[in-house]
Amino acid sequence: MNIDTKKARDFCERLFQAYGFTLDESKIISDVLIRADLYGIESHGIHRLIRYNDEITSGQVDIKAKPQIVHETPVSACIEANKAMGQLTSVQAMKLAIQKAKTNSCAMVTVRNSNHYGIAGYYSEMAAKEDLAGVCMTNTEAICVPTFGAQAMTGTNAIAFAMPAEPYNFSYDASTTIVPRGKIEVYRKNEIPLPDNWALDETGKPSNDAALVIDNIIAKAGGGIAPLGGLGTLHGGHKGYGLSVIVDIFCAIFSGGLTSNYVNRKPDHTGICHYFMAFDYGIFGDKKTIKANMSKFLQELRDSKKAEGQERIYTHGEKASLMMAERENGQIPVNEKTFNEMKLLAEKLGAEFIN
Amino acid sequence: MNIDTKKARDFCERLFQAYGFTLDESKIISDVLIRADLYGIESHGIHRLIRYNDEITSGQVDIKAKPQIVHETPVSACIEANKAMGQLTSVQAMKLAIQKAKTNSCAMVTVRNSNHYGIAGYYSEMAAKEDLAGVCMTNTEAICVPTFGAQAMTGTNAIAFAMPAEPYNFSYDASTTIVPRGKIEVYRKNEIPLPDNWALDETGKPSNDAALVIDNIIAKAGGGIAPLGGLGTLHGGHKGYGLSVIVDIFCAIFSGGLTSNYVNRKPDHTGICHYFMAFDYGIFGDKKTIKANMSKFLQELRDSKKAEGQERIYTHGEKASLMMAERENGQIPVNEKTFNEMKLLAEKLGAEFIN
Repeated sequence: MNIDTKKARDFCERLFQAYGFTLDESKIISDVLIRADLYGIESHGIHRLIRYNDEITSGQVDIKAKPQIVHETPVSACIEANKAMGQLTSVQAMKLAIQKAKTNSCAMVTVRNSNHYGIAGYYSEMAAKEDLAGVCMTNTEAICVPTFGAQAMTGTNAIAFAMPAEPYNFSYDASTTIVPRGKIEVYRKNEIPLPDNWALDETGKPSNDAALVIDNIIAKAGGGIAPLGGLGTLHGGHKGYGLSVIVDIFCAIFSGGLTSNYVNRKPDHTGICHYFMAFDYGIFGDKKTIKANMSKFLQELRDSKKAEGQERIYTHGEKASLMMAERENGQIPVNEKTFNEMKLLAEKLGAEFIN
Repeated sequence: MNIDTKKARDFCERLFQAYGFTLDESKIISDVLIRADLYGIESHGIHRLIRYNDEITSGQVDIKAKPQIVHETPVSACIEANKAMGQLTSVQAMKLAIQKAKTNSCAMVTVRNSNHYGIAGYYSEMAAKEDLAGVCMTNTEAICVPTFGAQAMTGTNAIAFAMPAEPYNFSYDASTTIVPRGKIEVYRKNEIPLPDNWALDETGKPSNDAALVIDNIIAKAGGGIAPLGGLGTLHGGHKGYGLSVIVDIFCAIFSGGLTSNYVNRKPDHTGICHYFMAFDYGIFGDKKTIKANMSKFLQELRDSKKAEGQERIYTHGEKASLMMAERENGQIPVNEKTFNEMKLLAEKLGAEFIN
């Protein structure tokens, strides 16, 4: 089924206010969530309302938290989020990075002790909207097993990068695992075996059993998902493993927070860490020329020769831009389970449902 | 066979002087080359002397080139290399980034119109030696085919990141292709079929034929190597494709130089572009604490549970550090073909050979 985007957004804002967030805070959280649905990334949109509900009610998220800057220079800050809602501390952090980048060309802000923040690309794109380049990363609880290992040590560990271009900005946003956990959950739900090279059991042997892999991750019993590049080194798994370690360095080591292997070890505490960077690409030359060269390169990629049977080569952020243009003043899809969960949350919190 | 590291280094220095480089320049180029052999990355070490010979004698490399800063701010520079030897303009660029980072916390330098610069990790590690974090990227001629494409559009496009730690620094240095071109060449030499998911023919169909793939790359006839994550999207090939585009943005778009799809299109001109970044990780807090947390995290990765049959989990840069400690005052391996090429070059240039 589909619901009007405006109605979905209004509902989210009412719901987050019902938890005790201010109107402004509720607007920010809802904008990040709805953006995921506009982009077609349903796993990070309103589908997640039920998980945020659990995090808020368990005390994992402190709705009254006041994130504090614990270290600051003209080009940096480190923020202790005090268990704030991930979206709130993250929008604050990227705004700070943007403000510092506008004054000092390049700035980085790290955040510790936060929570799930939605799509990483939302924040890197905040920089691109200000005609800056933006980078964003986050760690998560451990799901990814190092090359030759049998124990998840790093997280989904997404990397996002956005850079202005015409007719669409370039916007990369991807996990450093071969697939995100949600993909494994889909295979479990559909009871089909995982493709080879995706996951390992608790002894470190390759596994095609989605249920076993997910249960082991939840129980922290060993095994998990392969890094980008897969198991072993034949297809470059050691590269994905390294990228995932880099994300933990930027997010957790640079913020003084928890690395993925310590995240979400307590019922009322995740400890997730993020990294935000904004820089003015005009530090390298004339911005108009750089942006024109950027747009030309992306167009050349899209125009390059297609494989037999393929009609289109995409550049990163293109599909999401097109989908958002269609959905923003229209509708977003919602599956029945999510719709029922939303209804349940509305009743529980006394928030008016979508009519 | 093995040769004394010192003798190999002295020989390289004599050889580059024989081309007309100064003693100082020859020492820099030789240090980058020998470092690759010390790290066990033979493809980028003295094995490459014959290729550098071809590049120097064809005029692709201008030994008298004076790289010029064409744009500069307190935190950045853009360098026109004027076809300089890649190692020379790159050491200069990273030194500039380091100097600016020491004064202004964070700096980025881009280089255009350069040549092959050896191992990317050499430059990021220059920053780590100064107790800074370092990033380095380079594009190359196009070998990597976008997801759903049939034509190589991006290069090997390595990403390197180095960060101080005990007992070994973290040092990541990897291509954004599933394998570098040299790996395909080894399969060709040994006449064995390529693993699935590595490469495509000129129509964009998967190919296991190493000779066909290499010949097509050289002739720019279509096809090429898959991005990290492989062909299609099942194993995340779109992520590797995106990372490879990001490298071209940082190297070529930010320097105003040639993107990979235009690199090496003329016999006497490669046009390769690089990116260098250094930043003081003390902008986030106490450096000793950050470095200690970094070392602890890397040790936890190494100590984490091994897969059955595996004895060791490495962190990036560890193997290279251990190998260098062994080889630095000892010997490096050289295959007979390379040894004979070195002898030939010595005779041709009138440089004293290794005795």
